[in-house]
Amino acid sequence: SLIQKNDRLKINKTLTMDTLNPQVKAVEYAVRGPIVLKAGEIERYLEEGGTKPFSEVIKANIGDAHAMGQQPITFLRQVVALCTFPELMDSPSFPEDAKWRARRILQGCGGHSLGSYSASPGVECIRKDIAAYIEQRDEGVPSDWENIYLTTGASDGIMTILRLLVSGKDSSRTGVMIPIPQYPLYSAAISEMDAVQVNYYLDEDNCWALDINELHRAYQAAKQHCQPRVICIINPGNPTGQVQSKKCIEEVLHFAYEENLFVMSDEVYQDNVYAPDCQFHSFKKVLYEMGPEYFSSVELVSFHSTSKGYTGECGFRGGYMEVINMDPEVKAQLVKLLSVRLCPPLAGQAAMDVIVNPPQPEEHTFKQFHQEKSSVLGALAEKAKLTEQILNAVPGIKCNPVQGAMYAFPRIFIPPKAVEEAKALGMQPDMLYCLRLLEETGICVVPGSGFGQKDRTYHFRMTILPSIEKLNVLLGKVRDFHISFLKEYSGLE
Amino acid sequence: SLIQKNDRLKINKTLTMDTLNPQVKAVEYAVRGPIVLKAGEIERYLEEGGTKPFSEVIKANIGDAHAMGQQPITFLRQVVALCTFPELMDSPSFPEDAKWRARRILQGCGGHSLGSYSASPGVECIRKDIAAYIEQRDEGVPSDWENIYLTTGASDGIMTILRLLVSGKDSSRTGVMIPIPQYPLYSAAISEMDAVQVNYYLDEDNCWALDINELHRAYQAAKQHCQPRVICIINPGNPTGQVQSKKCIEEVLHFAYEENLFVMSDEVYQDNVYAPDCQFHSFKKVLYEMGPEYFSSVELVSFHSTSKGYTGECGFRGGYMEVINMDPEVKAQLVKLLSVRLCPPLAGQAAMDVIVNPPQPEEHTFKQFHQEKSSVLGALAEKAKLTEQILNAVPGIKCNPVQGAMYAFPRIFIPPKAVEEAKALGMQPDMLYCLRLLEETGICVVPGSGFGQKDRTYHFRMTILPSIEKLNVLLGKVRDFHISFLKEYSGLE
Ligand SMILES: Cc1ncc(COP(=O)(O)O)c(C=O)c1O
Ligand SMILES: Cc1ncc(COP(=O)(O)O)c(C=O)c1O
Repeated sequence: SLIQKNDRLKINKTLTMDTLNPQVKAVEYAVRGPIVLKAGEIERYLEEGGTKPFSEVIKANIGDAHAMGQQPITFLRQVVALCTFPELMDSPSFPEDAKWRARRILQGCGGHSLGSYSASPGVECIRKDIAAYIEQRDEGVPSDWENIYLTTGASDGIMTILRLLVSGKDSSRTGVMIPIPQYPLYSAAISEMDAVQVNYYLDEDNCWALDINELHRAYQAAKQHCQPRVICIINPGNPTGQVQSKKCIEEVLHFAYEENLFVMSDEVYQDNVYAPDCQFHSFKKVLYEMGPEYFSSVELVSFHSTSKGYTGECGFRGGYMEVINMDPEVKAQLVKLLSVRLCPPLAGQAAMDVIVNPPQPEEHTFKQFHQEKSSVLGALAEKAKLTEQILNAVPGIKCNPVQGAMYAFPRIFIPPKAVEEAKALGMQPDMLYCLRLLEETGICVVPGSGFGQKDRTYHFRMTILPSIEKLNVLLGKVRDFHISFLKEYSGLE
Repeated sequence: SLIQKNDRLKINKTLTMDTLNPQVKAVEYAVRGPIVLKAGEIERYLEEGGTKPFSEVIKANIGDAHAMGQQPITFLRQVVALCTFPELMDSPSFPEDAKWRARRILQGCGGHSLGSYSASPGVECIRKDIAAYIEQRDEGVPSDWENIYLTTGASDGIMTILRLLVSGKDSSRTGVMIPIPQYPLYSAAISEMDAVQVNYYLDEDNCWALDINELHRAYQAAKQHCQPRVICIINPGNPTGQVQSKKCIEEVLHFAYEENLFVMSDEVYQDNVYAPDCQFHSFKKVLYEMGPEYFSSVELVSFHSTSKGYTGECGFRGGYMEVINMDPEVKAQLVKLLSVRLCPPLAGQAAMDVIVNPPQPEEHTFKQFHQEKSSVLGALAEKAKLTEQILNAVPGIKCNPVQGAMYAFPRIFIPPKAVEEAKALGMQPDMLYCLRLLEETGICVVPGSGFGQKDRTYHFRMTILPSIEKLNVLLGKVRDFHISFLKEYSGLE
């Protein structure tokens, strides 16, 4: 090189966009993307006394219940506080039901302290509680606690299992089937690991149901250029809010069996079902009911989390996965991989324990617990209905029923003029739409393009988490915005 | 294929040792390896009434202070309990000093709840507290809170930074320089990411000091087959317990500057310095003192954790990293990568906040806090000395001073007969030694081969965490075992 070494050093960084791991560069993650940065900017501007046509930013971009004002479940927090500060065991203001749970958890911890590392798969008694919970949930289908692994949120579990399945080296050959629209953790993980994303499209015209023919199509097409080895399902769906029927789950499992696919079933919204004609069916239970031929062979991992349901404890980073039919040698490799990161956070493990081992009818704490739980789930059901109704009354918006989870994913008509304008600006049309919505109303939602959608269809994802009052305001503003947006871009034609 | 599809399906798993990500297979992790599994087995055997020549297993294999009986720092737990269950703000038994900290942390949380996701880099006010702490620790060297990222334990930070630096695709070209012996998270991460591990050997004859000539040797040798781009340093050292001198750190930084290396400085043991003639020097402060030429150019990340120091809060999975001189575009990529996993656990973030913002002399809680802190650190210093002394009195064991961290890494003489026997069994000689030690005495330590060591030298790592009483028993048993081991294998020659 002509440039002297010392001069070069002063100018060049070691780690630049050119030398950065290209797979990191390839990752896209919209839920915390440019819209959210913009929302932050506007918030600071308002705080500093700036004026806007609105007084506050309403964040409907992320499934973070407590941030939207949902109160924690008292009992859960009592147990975790007792574990954190065991001196509280002497306090008469903590219920005995919480104390015995906390004592039991601490007995399972090294030195009886939440401050010790647990075994990498988690605290043994919590794993046992989880297995018992699953057996009860699935009406007797057996669950082995040694198949349960605590995780740092479901995110961590999903990444870990994909890591086992996807090789960095010849990974361009491993296909991972994911729904479109999807929760972008999946596409991000696939990019980061350099696997091949195999899209199967959910059927918007049929309440975002999973269509088995579409699975076959996607699989056959993918086989031309990669080896599809994994299928991911999100049920209830994020961002699409559908709850899958038993028949549909059977079809997926049969397909996985036939094609020898590893099944990853993301069931973090298993407690979030609102539509009266829907019910949560776990993939495991359905597999069991398909008979021993299936139940003893299909490799299935299902994920759960403290972040959703009625607890909404996102910050605890609690979660677990149940791993079925995994090769024992591979399981040992899984444990090794988990060991490198030592263990999931103990407070999250304790929170998970309360979720799977809540107050029982004969316990004193049951009434308050039950009341708090029903109140959260009742309000969510109401908000799911409200959101669907108001959105569907807007011309140019069409919203499937929010059967479960915490999101509406309405389809929005964007006039060709607006599509052109977005293209000229180098952005997705629904990004333009969401940016305008944010700037004009203070409402922060995520463009559908961040989750994937059929070409030339546009959507946004909003959570149903704001209070009913705020949600009404929000939906009214969306309506007004949408009407004036249509007018602006159609009127100018 | 001749076998019918359906038959194949019933027999073969999708995920087997053959199809497993080979990089996962390549990972080695001894700290929780076969020795620890064996220890668990023996523990269960004893619990079930089995008999052994000892009554309990003493686990000196892992740096887990609470598991070894260390008590939590009261003030830290008070703050976290208040954050977890804010109803306790009304309790007169919690000190005001803890309450205002908890209130401040909660104010920084969405919905004032520990149950909300934080921004991916962590809660803003905690990042600010950390920056203030670093400035104070480094006697005025500026720290920008936007360079601070909370992590899920230091492990998570280390993995994340390596992920930026190592590409999965042409990664076989990225060399990562690590000390030998090392904390095996590093070798595990390097295997998982398929980078090239570049060993530089610490100088056992010189108290495990880092030798700049050895760095040059390792670098030049590595350049023949890869591109060394990162250097990792652990100071104070794990497993080696040395504390690096300022001069030595200057040399490393100068070397990194000259060779354009990214510096990862693992400083999780920064509060664990026992030797009266040693002092912790942060890489950042030393870099600053080398002048603006260096301070404005060397890319440096330093890691800290709640797991070590005097708090030992491993289970909280708290930690942070400070990132200096990173390219702004790369920083945006870092934030994106962190976003995919959403955020570090909030209780761990709160615990980290207490560590960087502890009670001050004018606060009521100062006295107890200070007492607890000094008592932990005083006992560790005493145990460091004790361990070195007793081990060095055993013929065939040579132990460098435990200047800092939590481990002794004595060199052990293993007679040729034992080496041969181990080879015949297909195991490392120090693995044979440690297995025998465990089976005969119940003491669980980790073979040196799990950390790396010079050929034909053998070591084990033990923590100095057991109580003084237990440590005395443990060291006595090691001595007796070692003497009889020598006798057995030398006598038979
Ligand atoms: C479908 C789905 N899976 C997984 C996650 C990850 O959640 P966590 O890591 O907080 O458990 C989320 C979070 O929104 C989700 O919606
Ligand atoms: C040198 C070193 N770095 C990092 C870690 C990771 O610790 P944690 O992830 O608990 O913060 C450890 C744990 O023992 C360590 O010894």
